[in-house]
Amino acid sequence: MARLDFYFDFSSPYGYFAATRIDALAARHGRTVKWHPVLLGAVFKTTGSVPLATVPLKGEYSFRDFERTARFHGIPYRRPANFPIATQLAARAMTWIDQSFGEAKAVAFAKAAYAAYFVDGADITQPEGIGRAAQAVGIRTDAMLEGANSQPVKDALKAQVDAAMARGVFGSPFVIADGEPFWGFDRFDQLEAFLKNGKI
Amino acid sequence: MARLDFYFDFSSPYGYFAATRIDALAARHGRTVKWHPVLLGAVFKTTGSVPLATVPLKGEYSFRDFERTARFHGIPYRRPANFPIATQLAARAMTWIDQSFGEAKAVAFAKAAYAAYFVDGADITQPEGIGRAAQAVGIRTDAMLEGANSQPVKDALKAQVDAAMARGVFGSPFVIADGEPFWGFDRFDQLEAFLKNGKI
Repeated sequence: MARLDFYFDFSSPYGYFAATRIDALAARHGRTVKWHPVLLGAVFKTTGSVPLATVPLKGEYSFRDFERTARFHGIPYRRPANFPIATQLAARAMTWIDQSFGEAKAVAFAKAAYAAYFVDGADITQPEGIGRAAQAVGIRTDAMLEGANSQPVKDALKAQVDAAMARGVFGSPFVIADGEPFWGFDRFDQLEAFLKNGKI
Repeated sequence: MARLDFYFDFSSPYGYFAATRIDALAARHGRTVKWHPVLLGAVFKTTGSVPLATVPLKGEYSFRDFERTARFHGIPYRRPANFPIATQLAARAMTWIDQSFGEAKAVAFAKAAYAAYFVDGADITQPEGIGRAAQAVGIRTDAMLEGANSQPVKDALKAQVDAAMARGVFGSPFVIADGEPFWGFDRFDQLEAFLKNGKI
């Protein structure tokens, strides 16, 4: 059975929530998951969107919703001091780890980077913060930084983001299962029904 | 126990879905509902938002999500020929019915107007289309039009929309329960948990 494509941005709380659940959800239906970091900054240029937290009225609500949604689902979450953040470094680091050490380590890094940012309060835009996630999966910070900042890795990530937009990805989290798109952690109930029944 | 405040726009599919469920959800927890029509056009001027369906990439997805969400929840839905629409006439008509015949009839009218638009394909921006909803609750179209277009009713609706924004309402559906805001039909699971447990 085809893998699920899971798109996420490292600055997206709902992407983080989804990241804590997507592998188990897929496994319940005999599926595996391909994890794709994307850059919402690039995507939002296409859609004309702005970060949720910066919108009048909606912004204040969104912080409340992040915390309430985390409690509702029993997911550890602490509001980061800086939000939203640029996620080029984290996404490039994951891309380099995928190329250099394979997919399993890249996914473990992604989970560690999300936890560093949304649980431990690390600044993952900085070498020290993102370095914690690298060390958690046994990779040296200096090697990761050199790899993440290399031109081939930058180019590879840009190509991945362009490919995601070409498939219609416009937010985080975004899952494509057998061609069917699901945007948002709050569509995981529909995703689960789709995987179970083959349709909705 | 305090009533729930339910805010909705007549052009909002998720508002329509919520309208089919909110009374029963509230009743399960010994609550009643105060229905407040709002005008998202006015709200979006404040938030700088645009209708979902007009956003690149997100727009196409949203039409798919409307239909899939309706199927997932077992709610009748047919994509309207015109979408989104201006909802001043429908909202003013409801305001006039509330003033003239009371709340129960206004809520019955709102449900009929939503069904006329999202199930029967009526153009509720026009007298004939919105007239169907009036007739469904035993009100003559000509009387409704005269009432809806009167200055006191226009002023009353504007005051209601301003009051909604002052409470932080920025979308549809939007429910406030004991001061706690819930935006979106996809937060009805959290709303239900909140009503059941008094917190999340």
